Amino acid sequence: MIQTAVLGFGTVGSGVVEVLDRNSDKINGTVREGINVKYILDLREFPESPYRDKVVHDYDVILNDPDIKIICETMGGKEPAYTFSRKALEKGISVCTSNKELVAAKGPELISIAKEHNCSYMFEASVGGGIPLLRPIVTSLEQEKITKVTGILNGTTNYILTKMDAEGADFDETLGEAQAKGYAERNPEADVEGYDTGRKIAILTSLISGGTVKFEDVYCEGIAKITQEDFRAARLAGGVIKLLGICELGEDGRYTVMTAPFIVGRESPLAMVNDVYNGILIHGNMVDDVMFYGQGAGRYPTASAVVADVVDCARNIGKWIPIDWDGSKVEELAPFFERKGKFMVRVDIDERAAVAMAFGTSVQVLDAATGEFTFITGELTEKDFADKAASLKTVRNSIRVLADK
Amino acid sequence: MIQTAVLGFGTVGSGVVEVLDRNSDKINGTVREGINVKYILDLREFPESPYRDKVVHDYDVILNDPDIKIICETMGGKEPAYTFSRKALEKGISVCTSNKELVAAKGPELISIAKEHNCSYMFEASVGGGIPLLRPIVTSLEQEKITKVTGILNGTTNYILTKMDAEGADFDETLGEAQAKGYAERNPEADVEGYDTGRKIAILTSLISGGTVKFEDVYCEGIAKITQEDFRAARLAGGVIKLLGICELGEDGRYTVMTAPFIVGRESPLAMVNDVYNGILIHGNMVDDVMFYGQGAGRYPTASAVVADVVDCARNIGKWIPIDWDGSKVEELAPFFERKGKFMVRVDIDERAAVAMAFGTSVQVLDAATGEFTFITGELTEKDFADKAASLKTVRNSIRVLADK
Repeated sequence: MIQTAVLGFGTVGSGVVEVLDRNSDKINGTVREGINVKYILDLREFPESPYRDKVVHDYDVILNDPDIKIICETMGGKEPAYTFSRKALEKGISVCTSNKELVAAKGPELISIAKEHNCSYMFEASVGGGIPLLRPIVTSLEQEKITKVTGILNGTTNYILTKMDAEGADFDETLGEAQAKGYAERNPEADVEGYDTGRKIAILTSLISGGTVKFEDVYCEGIAKITQEDFRAARLAGGVIKLLGICELGEDGRYTVMTAPFIVGRESPLAMVNDVYNGILIHGNMVDDVMFYGQGAGRYPTASAVVADVVDCARNIGKWIPIDWDGSKVEELAPFFERKGKFMVRVDIDERAAVAMAFGTSVQVLDAATGEFTFITGELTEKDFADKAASLKTVRNSIRVLADK
Repeated sequence: MIQTAVLGFGTVGSGVVEVLDRNSDKINGTVREGINVKYILDLREFPESPYRDKVVHDYDVILNDPDIKIICETMGGKEPAYTFSRKALEKGISVCTSNKELVAAKGPELISIAKEHNCSYMFEASVGGGIPLLRPIVTSLEQEKITKVTGILNGTTNYILTKMDAEGADFDETLGEAQAKGYAERNPEADVEGYDTGRKIAILTSLISGGTVKFEDVYCEGIAKITQEDFRAARLAGGVIKLLGICELGEDGRYTVMTAPFIVGRESPLAMVNDVYNGILIHGNMVDDVMFYGQGAGRYPTASAVVADVVDCARNIGKWIPIDWDGSKVEELAPFFERKGKFMVRVDIDERAAVAMAFGTSVQVLDAATGEFTFITGELTEKDFADKAASLKTVRNSIRVLADK
């Protein structure tokens, strides 16, 4: 039996124990020795749990047990997750995690410690929840020059946007409902401000580029300002509103990396990614568009992805599973203000002349009949758009429009 | 340099050579030694091709060159592809193929020869074209009990159905157009009769079950009988018509495996898979639904998938890459006539009473105003449905309805 330990018996951690238990016959078909959870590390006791006898409170018990070959870090947050992961890897124990915050901050360092100690640092569950995504990028698309990734990467905000669109409710009300259902956290900032999506697109871009994209360098804009009038404008434009994480490779070899709400045309496969689902559209120079779709969060989908990593590590005991992410090579991103695109803008109807002055007369008019003048600009840089929009007095909101290809 | 040969310099074969050439810098990042195409086997000469000097006509030249480690079999058809592949594997040369006909017929035998000779038989490109699909099933979902696969697996028929729906043209006209554009073959039988989809779902079910599903045991129904009236009925039912390959695990452990046109509700992610794209929805017991989407055919996407296999083999020279597909264990499928589902049926309006007699009065009526009585049955077995439909005189067409979950 290959012995493992699970750090943190919360939603994902308890899911990992359950997946390993319920699907053990399937897993043992692949890993003939079998995989056993020997310890569960948590501050709490779980007297009602069938796994209560495995619970320990002292990490050293796990670290000093030479039987332990793989650890699942499902605690979240930077500390003590970072210290625990580092200590395990330094002992040659592989670590599988769902902790995107830690991966975005310390991924390449932990990968390199793993390499040094002939074990692996794996994080499939940190992006796209249960969707097989990072492993296919590393093992099935390594022959592709990936030039663009466009992803719905956060289930909470996608749920809120889907509900707002379907039910006509406003943002605060829908957020409250999502919190009541457990789809949004009590402090929803990381989700609604786009930070969670920003971390995930930083991880994806790092894996694609082989260098390191710092989360701090990713332009992040959230969904808190989106109103029913914006959804109406999106419908007039033939689209829906989605919070996207995007990385795009420019001709100069630099990536533009960002998170923001976009109007997505109904023809795009991303338009049908609704509720808590995630969808990640990847463009390669030979394969064209491929998309990966599934539940981006939730106990069992996320746990399933952690267990996929555990199985991979179990098949590779004593070996490093290669991941090309160089911490010493920080990617210099393209300046965000040079990004080009179209923008949907809503202003007061009496600013029509001012719009013509600023954006010319060839804007695509969506609505000029309801007291509001709603239009889509031609292609502009972010800087140009900001300058021109600043010349208008009554910009109610503006949302970027996703290019068709 | 790792030396390779390409068998067949047609659409896919020439694409493989081009992908290896154009993306060599990317590939060399993964395979440090580099990958070189030393030979191209074809009956023809290609005096205009930049690769003309690599062309040979005698397979023994390739087989007897000890430098050759990997062969790409992009000839299609059973012979000589089978003999060529077997001979290579027996010499310890890995074979990567896009040949679904051969994989469906001889996959497990060739895998087992590969295993015996410490090399690999790889066929990512045989199902879903460029979509990373088989490798994620084997390496990212091995912890899942996969209970259902529902796939749009044939680009030609999906293009025809998409055009018929959008343009209101009939089947023959749309097929002719698809042939003119090169999307359909001169002899379109394998595509339009569902055989191609049938082979692919047989391969998928084999990989999932670990046993062997014979193509001959797969129920196959094509799209040649679909009319505009059927599309109209599908719209009334809130759906679209798609040719699906389905495998579903029953409670008795047997799979139902089939190919047929289905009415797919617009809520399903499969409903937006249009034109030549493929989409494969996989249901696992823990991960729930995941979908893989992309171009299911075409020179570069298919070639890209072959090259993904080549890279995998290049990283594993002298080793067998495990694929669990047992040729000695033929899967006994569930009897097709026991399958349960709903059916959309179109009959003459004056058979309304006969419909009530056969199917009861609680059928879902879609239309009773245009001279036609169009309805959806309750859930029935295939046998029950066939019996009841036989009691009606004027069944114009019937199409199965995909269950929501």
